[in-house]
Amino acid sequence: MTSSEQFASLARDHIRAIEDWPEPGVTFRDITPLLADPAGLAGTVDALAGIAATWGPIDKVVGIEARGFVLAPPVAMRLGAGFVPVRKAGKLPAAVESRTYDLEYGSATVEIHRDAIVTGERVLVLDDVLATGGTLSAARDLVTGLGGRVVGQLVLVELAPLGGRARLGTQTPTAALVTY
Amino acid sequence: MTSSEQFASLARDHIRAIEDWPEPGVTFRDITPLLADPAGLAGTVDALAGIAATWGPIDKVVGIEARGFVLAPPVAMRLGAGFVPVRKAGKLPAAVESRTYDLEYGSATVEIHRDAIVTGERVLVLDDVLATGGTLSAARDLVTGLGGRVVGQLVLVELAPLGGRARLGTQTPTAALVTY
Repeated sequence: MTSSEQFASLARDHIRAIEDWPEPGVTFRDITPLLADPAGLAGTVDALAGIAATWGPIDKVVGIEARGFVLAPPVAMRLGAGFVPVRKAGKLPAAVESRTYDLEYGSATVEIHRDAIVTGERVLVLDDVLATGGTLSAARDLVTGLGGRVVGQLVLVELAPLGGRARLGTQTPTAALVTY
Repeated sequence: MTSSEQFASLARDHIRAIEDWPEPGVTFRDITPLLADPAGLAGTVDALAGIAATWGPIDKVVGIEARGFVLAPPVAMRLGAGFVPVRKAGKLPAAVESRTYDLEYGSATVEIHRDAIVTGERVLVLDDVLATGGTLSAARDLVTGLGGRVVGQLVLVELAPLGGRARLGTQTPTAALVTY
């Protein structure tokens, strides 16, 4: 096995399935046991940074509230980049840009500080899970709206049946460490 | 200047004051410019890990939702530890322990996975800001309730006039990188 295959195997062993959460019929992929394991945490960060490094130099890593906050800062450190949060509406204290996107029921709004990205910066957008792709897509739009260049979209877990990859399109590279 | 004093100076330069946020009369200390700077991010994590290392070996680093999620995982990696989230009520998918604490108006509840801490583990509790100490104190109680030993409480920013350190007591070491 390659080191990447070995890590994917370790990750699968430590990601647990929670049935009927958050609602009946849904299987939730819980990454907390993976991150609670020192080798799992370091291996996850190294593997994510390894993928991102193939997309060229990266200036900023954007993490999406709340679980994207867990992985983005250590991946940014491995890449020699800075960390920028995309937060839910009303949480960032300085001037923001907002983006509202549709959910299954209703909508959600995410925000970024206007001065968090400088025109021309190369940006990685990172989240824990790719489901429908709505949040990642909104985060990407926020970055490009500020003049940043999104060089890749990266997640720990992709839930393939939900079709997020199609929504994200093929113009920007997208990768997942583990796919269900 | 020592490297620690140099970092504190860098940190102060990159933490910005936002007046009248989240409400009139309050000065909010915004750490996002510090974390967006690659040297600021790495320096913050190294400085926090350096303090924690003086408290002996650490098995788990607990980060508190949402901004505590940013610093706890990279600090855990530096210490060779795992990361454990303390989340707002209803966010963790497996069996949890809960703790409710008082706020200025009303109350808040935080939760931890029951199997996230093993009896006897040495645990660091980490958050971005120490204000009144309510959240950190609740997180510490959750860890000790699971049989963990909290060896230290660590924050990036301490807002001294709010008296959080007194609420946390002196039994467990408490430290802040920057104090206002």
